Amino acid sequence: MTTPREAGFAMPAEWAGHAGCWMIWPERPDNWRLGAKPAQGAFVAVASAIARYEPVTMMVSARQFENARTVLPEAVRVVEVSTNDSWARDVGCSFLLGRDGKLGGVDWPFNAWGGLIGGLYFPWDLDDQVAAKMLGIERARRFRAPNVVEGGAIHVDGEGTVLVAEQCVLNENRNENPTRQEMERVLKDYLGASHVIWLGQGVPEDETDGHVDNLACFVAPGVVLLTWCDDPADPHYAVSRDAEARLLAARDAKGRPIKVERIPMPTPMFYTAEEVSGLDATPSGMNRRAGDRMAASYVNFYIANGAIIAPSFGGGGFGVETDAAARDVLTRLFPGRDIVMVPAREILLGGGNIHCITQQQPKGGT
Amino acid sequence: MTTPREAGFAMPAEWAGHAGCWMIWPERPDNWRLGAKPAQGAFVAVASAIARYEPVTMMVSARQFENARTVLPEAVRVVEVSTNDSWARDVGCSFLLGRDGKLGGVDWPFNAWGGLIGGLYFPWDLDDQVAAKMLGIERARRFRAPNVVEGGAIHVDGEGTVLVAEQCVLNENRNENPTRQEMERVLKDYLGASHVIWLGQGVPEDETDGHVDNLACFVAPGVVLLTWCDDPADPHYAVSRDAEARLLAARDAKGRPIKVERIPMPTPMFYTAEEVSGLDATPSGMNRRAGDRMAASYVNFYIANGAIIAPSFGGGGFGVETDAAARDVLTRLFPGRDIVMVPAREILLGGGNIHCITQQQPKGGT
Repeated sequence: MTTPREAGFAMPAEWAGHAGCWMIWPERPDNWRLGAKPAQGAFVAVASAIARYEPVTMMVSARQFENARTVLPEAVRVVEVSTNDSWARDVGCSFLLGRDGKLGGVDWPFNAWGGLIGGLYFPWDLDDQVAAKMLGIERARRFRAPNVVEGGAIHVDGEGTVLVAEQCVLNENRNENPTRQEMERVLKDYLGASHVIWLGQGVPEDETDGHVDNLACFVAPGVVLLTWCDDPADPHYAVSRDAEARLLAARDAKGRPIKVERIPMPTPMFYTAEEVSGLDATPSGMNRRAGDRMAASYVNFYIANGAIIAPSFGGGGFGVETDAAARDVLTRLFPGRDIVMVPAREILLGGGNIHCITQQQPKGGT
Repeated sequence: MTTPREAGFAMPAEWAGHAGCWMIWPERPDNWRLGAKPAQGAFVAVASAIARYEPVTMMVSARQFENARTVLPEAVRVVEVSTNDSWARDVGCSFLLGRDGKLGGVDWPFNAWGGLIGGLYFPWDLDDQVAAKMLGIERARRFRAPNVVEGGAIHVDGEGTVLVAEQCVLNENRNENPTRQEMERVLKDYLGASHVIWLGQGVPEDETDGHVDNLACFVAPGVVLLTWCDDPADPHYAVSRDAEARLLAARDAKGRPIKVERIPMPTPMFYTAEEVSGLDATPSGMNRRAGDRMAASYVNFYIANGAIIAPSFGGGGFGVETDAAARDVLTRLFPGRDIVMVPAREILLGGGNIHCITQQQPKGGT
């Protein structure tokens, strides 16, 4: 089996030019309240925001095809792809470019964030086919990876560096007896990278076992944006500090030190009884309870051509004081891009955010 | 609503250059015996034959995706599209090209060849979405037509002429009180044509109410190939003669007379008891009985880039003496193309043939 690295493929940084963005239409009523109608509204808002900057493809089941086609803007391409839920970042391929500009992609095995040991639902067979289906539609070369990794578990700087968290990538519920050495080899071979930076734990409430994309992300070569907590009584406090210390001690693939930028954690948010009452009863691992804290983070944004599509959490009766400060940070860090904040509480209720529901397709040379 | 003609779009002849061919994977066990496994083998053979000459896309349900991907050649693109059966000619879009070479397509309303009055199955909702899904995948402009027409009910010469049969296009089970004038207007507006030639009845056993593509087809501008019967005791005899008389009395859009070429009807073929016993019981209109004659015809072939992919019926214990004569006719009429005959009895058992299960996508200029 030829690896992407052997074939000359690598994953570009998210800020490099895109051919477009892929998303998946939400519908399962045990994860999305009220028959997923509020979530569908939020996904339409995200897709509409991105579509102002780059083409968007929405993957939709046969059951929801007519509805999605009707409520999405005409410019959004709707294609039939069956899934078990709606996380394009995690079940979609990680798109690559070859040296000649040809499109390819990694098809990571997927096990619903933990398989039968803490995974979020069963089965996940349709999710595991999504990457192959995306690559088929684009007639792009597919590289099936040997190990379970989700797209949300990695960030790359496009210059050889991969950013991950041990809690997720070394988790026994993803791969059998995973070693740091083995997982580094797979990440390098399949992302066309040469160096891995390891953070420790992810955001405490995160159901994914610490996806890095909810904790930190590259915003430029040598610069990482980190979600930041200043309250020593909050469990996020230790996580932020440990991540910062590791980043400051690290070098990237080019040997540069890492500059750490901070973005405030959102005001703590909790499931309301009304929200939970709108969910179907389920035997899955997604059992939400009123009062549970949610894994909210502003770093869970999408970098589009010319814009940042970021979550906002206030409004609709919810007082969240941090939205403006987050916007200020993003405005400073991305001076060439519009900062578009989209109300994202309905996405957060399902366990993720804007970065989790999107997947960029880089613009190839041919 | 802008029509294709108003927008400068028209359907090219099948012999014009293709970007590729679309097909649908067969699976329904009340139309395809033995769980559709023999039919799947025949479809693989057809797809493999075409793929030697042009790219092939196979549309497959989520249920059969893994199986189809595994048994089809690697070069065949497999995309998820749910359907009610597997007739890409009839449920697929009729692809068009604009004056600037841009791709478009007609999305004909579909009612399973007759809706609740003699239609072949219920429901047909997924079939009716196929054209939109194909055009979505190709990012091509979609023109939803106002009237029910199937792709197998039309042939075009790419120079303004449409060939149809009254039995199908004027059938009350397709459109309410259809008039010749109204249907001519729709055919011209949506195929970008200027003239319609009307045949009368189609092949007698044809379940589609006389699709023209099982009876006759253009093989070049001004030349129509007609399935021919010389036995006055056969009900096909009168159909052939009536079609010939109409063609000889007609002019095409350019004012040319029509030259009629003949291809022999296949030796009559009948469902065997063994074949019928492999079908699921069904409340549909597809009830096959042992001894029923099948609507076999050699004109039901596909014109690929550089080849004719045509059905053969002999072999496998079935003595059919006409295959060689049919090959001779095709060889004479298509001197620049390979003549590739594929055993097609398993396709015929489902009610159609190679032209019925394929849909060409013309090569655009941009």
